[in-house]
Parts: sequence; C-alpha cells; structure tokens
Amino acid sequence: MSRLSGFPEHTPAERIVELAVLDHLRATFELHGFGSVETRAVEPLDVLLRKGEIDKEVYVVKRLQGADDEAASLALHFDLTVPFARYVVENASRLEFPFRRYQIQKVWRGERPQQGRFREFTQADIDIVARDVLRPHFDVEIAQVMAEALDGVIALVGTDGAQATLQVSNRKVLEGFYLGLGVADPTAVMQVVDKLDKLPGEKIVALLLEQGLDQAQAESCLALAEIATPDTSFVERVRALGVEHPLLDEGLAELAQVVGSVRATERVVVLADLRIARGLDYYTGTVFETRLSGYEQLGSICSGGRYDQLAADNRSTYPGVGISLGVSRLLAALLADGVTASRTVPSAVLVAVSDEDTRAEADAVAHALRSRGIPTEVAPAAAKFGKQIRHAERRGIPYVFFPADSRPRPGSTPAEGVTSHTVKDIRSGEQVEADPATWTPAPDELRPQIVRPITPNQQESTP
Amino acid sequence: MSRLSGFPEHTPAERIVELAVLDHLRATFELHGFGSVETRAVEPLDVLLRKGEIDKEVYVVKRLQGADDEAASLALHFDLTVPFARYVVENASRLEFPFRRYQIQKVWRGERPQQGRFREFTQADIDIVARDVLRPHFDVEIAQVMAEALDGVIALVGTDGAQATLQVSNRKVLEGFYLGLGVADPTAVMQVVDKLDKLPGEKIVALLLEQGLDQAQAESCLALAEIATPDTSFVERVRALGVEHPLLDEGLAELAQVVGSVRATERVVVLADLRIARGLDYYTGTVFETRLSGYEQLGSICSGGRYDQLAADNRSTYPGVGISLGVSRLLAALLADGVTASRTVPSAVLVAVSDEDTRAEADAVAHALRSRGIPTEVAPAAAKFGKQIRHAERRGIPYVFFPADSRPRPGSTPAEGVTSHTVKDIRSGEQVEADPATWTPAPDELRPQIVRPITPNQQESTP
Repeated sequence: MSRLSGFPEHTPAERIVELAVLDHLRATFELHGFGSVETRAVEPLDVLLRKGEIDKEVYVVKRLQGADDEAASLALHFDLTVPFARYVVENASRLEFPFRRYQIQKVWRGERPQQGRFREFTQADIDIVARDVLRPHFDVEIAQVMAEALDGVIALVGTDGAQATLQVSNRKVLEGFYLGLGVADPTAVMQVVDKLDKLPGEKIVALLLEQGLDQAQAESCLALAEIATPDTSFVERVRALGVEHPLLDEGLAELAQVVGSVRATERVVVLADLRIARGLDYYTGTVFETRLSGYEQLGSICSGGRYDQLAADNRSTYPGVGISLGVSRLLAALLADGVTASRTVPSAVLVAVSDEDTRAEADAVAHALRSRGIPTEVAPAAAKFGKQIRHAERRGIPYVFFPADSRPRPGSTPAEGVTSHTVKDIRSGEQVEADPATWTPAPDELRPQIVRPITPNQQESTP
Repeated sequence: MSRLSGFPEHTPAERIVELAVLDHLRATFELHGFGSVETRAVEPLDVLLRKGEIDKEVYVVKRLQGADDEAASLALHFDLTVPFARYVVENASRLEFPFRRYQIQKVWRGERPQQGRFREFTQADIDIVARDVLRPHFDVEIAQVMAEALDGVIALVGTDGAQATLQVSNRKVLEGFYLGLGVADPTAVMQVVDKLDKLPGEKIVALLLEQGLDQAQAESCLALAEIATPDTSFVERVRALGVEHPLLDEGLAELAQVVGSVRATERVVVLADLRIARGLDYYTGTVFETRLSGYEQLGSICSGGRYDQLAADNRSTYPGVGISLGVSRLLAALLADGVTASRTVPSAVLVAVSDEDTRAEADAVAHALRSRGIPTEVAPAAAKFGKQIRHAERRGIPYVFFPADSRPRPGSTPAEGVTSHTVKDIRSGEQVEADPATWTPAPDELRPQIVRPITPNQQESTP
C-alpha cells in the first residue's frame, strides 16, 4: 500500500510532539476564556463556494450508494472560518456575545501537494465575534492571545533563539491612503502591493503603472508598503507622505491601538508592517501575518484579521476578528529539523515479568503505580530480564520495575527466594529497592519530554 | 441555513462535557502505556471495501476540479480499525511490537440518520497489535483498560448508580460447540444466535431449523447462548451440555482467563455471556459488547474483540485485539438526559472595567490571574457594574474582579478615590478585598464542573 501524497501521518513520537503543541494551544486559549467549538467536517457546497474562493479547491463528498440527484452536495471544509460563521448564525439565539471560541481541527484542500502544502492539515483558530458592534480592543486581544500561544509553542518545539514577528497592518490605512492619492481601484492596488514579498520594488511600481497609476502615485504606494516600525512611530512616517483621507485617519488610530497595546513576549515581537495586505481575503480592518526566524520559507505561519461582517442573519450582523495558526505546516518543518519526543510511548515504567505464572503480581505492581498517576506497562512476555530491559530501552522508557519474587526457587530455602521489589533506572543502570505504593519518578519523567531541534535546516530556506 | 441531519454539533457547554470525557479517556489510555495515533480521514476506496462491509455506506471524496479519471478514488473512513491496520503495515518497520495505541477520531457512515445514529461521530478505540503472535493476556489487558476508562466516564457524566456490563464471549467457544454438535455452517448459526437480543428463543430455534439443524441441535445452540455468568462457572455449564470439540476447549480456556482476570470496578462489571457473537464482524477469538444500565436502548456502547489477522504484509501477520467506544452515541443520550457544564466558558473570573480609559488596568489584573493559571476574561465594555455582573452570570462565571480605582473621582479628594481591588462571588454576593497576585479560587472552580444528569429518560427506553 502506498502513502497518499498530501495526507501526512505521524509516527507515535511525532504524534507526542503534536499533542504537546495542541495541548499548549488549548491551555493558552482557555486561560483567556476562549471556549472550544468543533464543527462538522462537511458543509453544503454552496456555503463553501459563496465566498468566491475557487482558488481553494474543495473536496466534494457523496454517498457511494446515494442517488445521483441526492439533495444538496456536501464538501469538506477548507478552513475553519466559513464553518464558524455558519455555526454562529445557526446558534445565535443560544450563544452569549461577544463570543470567544477556539477551534482546532483538520481542514482539506485539493491543492497540488508540495513541500509544506498538504491536502489534509490541522489549523488552530481563535475568533471573537459580537452582535452588531465589535469594539477595536478585541483586535488587541486576539493579537495578544495568539502571541502568547505562539511564544509557548516556540519555547516547546522551536529552535534556540527562534523568534516570531507578528506583523500587523490595517486595510483602512491602505485603502484610505490609496483613496487619498486619488486611486480609482484600491483593491487592485492592494493585490499588487501584496506581492512585495516575492517581487522587487521596481517591479511593483511597474505593475502599478499598468493599473493606470502615475509614477508619483505608484512610488507613494511603494513608500507606504515599505514602512515597518516596532512601535507607533509608523503614524508619523505615514503622515510624512502627505496623503490625507478620513479612512486613513481611522485606520492609523486602530493600528496604533493594536501595535501600542499588544505586549511583546520573549519569543514574539510585534511589528506595524504596511506591506501586509492579505490581498485575496475579505478583511475590513486589522490584518495579521506572522513570520518565524529561520523558517522564512514557510511564509506566514499565522494569519488573520477583522471582518466587519463575518456572518449575518435577518436581524443582525456579526462582526468578528480572528487569527489562524497553521499547525501542520509549522510542525512538519520543525519535525524535519529534528524535534522529537524522549520516548515513543507514554509509559514511564515497564514492569518486568519473571515467569508467566507471576504475571498477576506484575499487574498488581503496575496497578499500584498507575493509581498514583504513573504511566506504566507490563512486559509482554517473561523473557530473560536483559531482553525485557532492551524492550524498555527501544521505547525510551526510563525505568524497569522488578516485582519481588516471593516464590521459593528450586534448590533454595524459602527464605532465599524472597526478594524485595526493585527499580532500575536504565539510563544510569542504578537499581534500588522500591515500594510500588510510594516510589515515584521525577515529575518531568512522568510524561515524554520534547527534545527540541538544534538549528533550522537552512537547505529548506530556498524559496 | 438548515442543520444537516446526522451531523450533530455541540453548544459550547455540551462541548465542555465532551472534552471532559475525551480528556478522561486519553488520560486512562496513556496511564496504561497506550500512545496516540491519528490517521488521515480518507482511505483508498478499495481498502475500505476490501472487508466486504458494504452494509456500512461510505462517503466517496473527489476534488471538485479533479478530472473524472483521477487516480484512485478516496473515501472517508467508516471506522478506525481498517485505517489502523493499514497504518500498522505501512509503518511496520518503524513501530515497536507489541504496539499499543489509542485513536480518538471522527468516522463517517452514510446511514439513514435516526435517533442515536449519526453520519459523523466520534469513536475512541484501543488496540494492541503484535507481529506474528499475540498472547492471550493482551485480551485481558484490553478489557481491563476499557473497563477502567468506562468506569471513569460513568463517574463523570453518568446517572447515579448507573453500571455498565462488559459482556465477554469467544468465537472459538461458539464455533467449537457448533462443530462438536455436527453443524455444517457454524458462521450461519452464529449470525442467527446473534439476533437473540431482538427475537425470542423459540423464534431463534425456528430460524436454526430453517438452517437445516435438527430440533436437538437447535435447542443446544439456544441453551449455549443463554449461559451468562459473572465468573468462570460458565465452563461447567457449557460442559454440562455434553458437547466436545478441541476448538471448544481452547475457547473455554481463553474465555475463562479473561473473565477470571479482569478486575471489576465500581461501575463496570464483567460477565461471560455466550449470546455475544458479533455476527458480522471478523473476530477470531474473544469478543466484547457492553450495555449501560438505564441506557439499554443504545445497544452495545463499546464493542470489539480479537482478530488473528488484523493486518498482514509479505513477511508477517499482525494479530490484534481491540475495543471501540461509541463516544458520540453515549454522549448524545446523556446530554439529552441533562448532563451539562457549570458554565459555558472556561473563564473562572470576569475582570470588570470601570471606564474604557482604565482597560489597561483591568488587562493587568487579568494578566496577573492568568499567570497563575486562573482562566480569566475582561468585560467587553465599561457598562454599569450591574450589567457586567449579569454578563458573568449568564455565562456561569463564578467571580467578578473589580480593579482598584486609583483615579480621583469628580468632586472627591484624591484620597477618597483610592480603593482596593475586590472580588465578588456572584453566587453568594460576598465581596472581599483581593490581591490579583495572590488570590485564588477553590481548585474545583478553576475549570467548569460537569453537572451530572439526575435519572435516565425512560421514555427513550422503548426499543
């Protein structure tokens, strides 16, 4: 059976790393009052295509035995925003607004699989949605929560010294600036400027001239896109370009609030970066992207922004702000660079079995250890102890427990046969007497530890 | 937008209950050394249909933009056993055997939706798989682990006094007995006897006569199926029927080992029950089903058994034993009976905001609380305190924190304006001074508590 391209699966050790990341994300989100929502994997095809994102190829789902004319077609969701918008409208009467939710789920896209692009992958989204009005401080909150979550992820699985940059911009700044310049189609300009990551400045100017802008307008657009400041000084630099428009004023105030309020963490810095436009998405204000040092080839690992109309029903609109972390892509890059788990199983202890007739005694020792929260497995067979120790070694299990042998041995007096329980640390070889009712490994030995990668693999850095 | 029949989604409070159940299952499985595996949602259609289970209607998955002749068809998995078998073969060189894994994932079946039958639902599976030989004590282990997991689930979300019965049988007992009776087609007999839950004994006998059995044979088959003992005394009762066959002896020894070795828990009892045959599944030895008192209408909530050939490659066979808990079906029944969460958000504390200009102070209080692991949210707007308290009440948040107001109030001297931080328990109304750097709620208030249902809904008990 051959592997399916674009549908990655993890080995048990890789899955331990992934679970540690997902656990950390969940804990951070919940600490900030975000509740979990899980939506079904499928949506009606028309709901998915309504956003016009035909560039995201969807997977249609049909019953094998279903009639050809079977009701509405279903398809697998390609992101978590569209299903969440549908969930909000469907449950509006049962939700308390403003509503904070996190959603960690698989999504599916029929894209051509390539390095770091999957057909099935996990996203971790947070959004805050309100009824009718969502105040600007929620944009700050979304950025702050994801910065803290990402800081912890880098601490857990990132390379030493790795740092993420949360790049913040605001559609109103860009649109207001272009309108103030007298540009006819601000959206078209935004989609050109969005290519500044891939194209040199002069090429951007040339493309803008093709859009009908004059040289001065095109150069102003480029100058705006080149402004990036770690604080609110971007406001002055934009003002210095001499363009005025009420929408620009509104956008600068909103962006200054976000950049001035989000606290940087040890591993996540915040940058006002006016090249960020999220060209093809339907954001209306704040927009976010995130780059990780040493992993620039991944592009933005975490993106989002504000929708003034995330969803709507007959009575209300539901403005929202959110950000989405591409867990699978980030993890795939870090796994390729060597992040792994200290063992391949949850077990901290293997209980040895000296004889199949005494398996019940080994089970009782394991039961005593588990009752105090120590993950434990029992040896599969009463093989030679050396073989049982190698069984533990191959899995990275640090301790082997040898139950007391209370049976008289052939040719020995009963007293000689009685031994105490002992436990062997198979890393040091040290073996000591131990009572299964009280013995405990070090707290950090209870769960597999994450072994971080040494250095990003620079070979992958080519675009 | 209408809800999709058969694709249930949870409210935030229901999702808190579901997560508590899934967390408990994961913790129990890991305590026993089972590692997590997650497989992709899709399998090649021919892999899914190979088992001949055409009664489980599958969902085919195709790219909307894909060519009609696109390579192999894919379909969503309908269980976690078939994908796991494929995963074992694909990763055999990287796995250490015997390999214990748990897998908690959605599965999809194109069945007609009805009460408790979903098209998308969550299963929690544990399996142990070995290379070439899997000793019988692993059947005991699988039963023990699931009994402990289920005990905890009932303690967490079950009704008072609810008890599950883990019914164990063995295909070798049934097949050996039928062969000893001189029956030509033991599998056909097994599929008839499997209906004993739904049909009376005389009807089973009539159906067996139609299969070509004589009256004495048919009555013996029925007598065997009616044997159920909480201990190993079933062996004598089977022997008393006077049938002999080597396969029967083997099966009786295996079943006696399982029933004699699995420790019952407070809420899960073990029963040797020879009516259990798992008629349509491909088990070769031990088989399991599980009934929950008060929820008999659900049928078996947890089923499984041993496959002597779970998977195979050119070099080896991989025998396995496993059991699968139908999480969604069980949870749907308990949610219908009123199990819920004490609050709809993770937040234990709402920090009030007296004025938008002091939001930063409220954020600082929230940061101090979160840094000590206390889930906290900040009020969405500086509304009247009564309104902010109602905001907390509607979500079930137990505490509202009022930051010190250090600004002079209009018309007061500066000294009068200075207050201390206070926290209000909005259940008792008690309000006390509190330091955000040290104040802590009771440990069981940190997370939403599960509120258990009072009594099973007997209206649902009709078949």
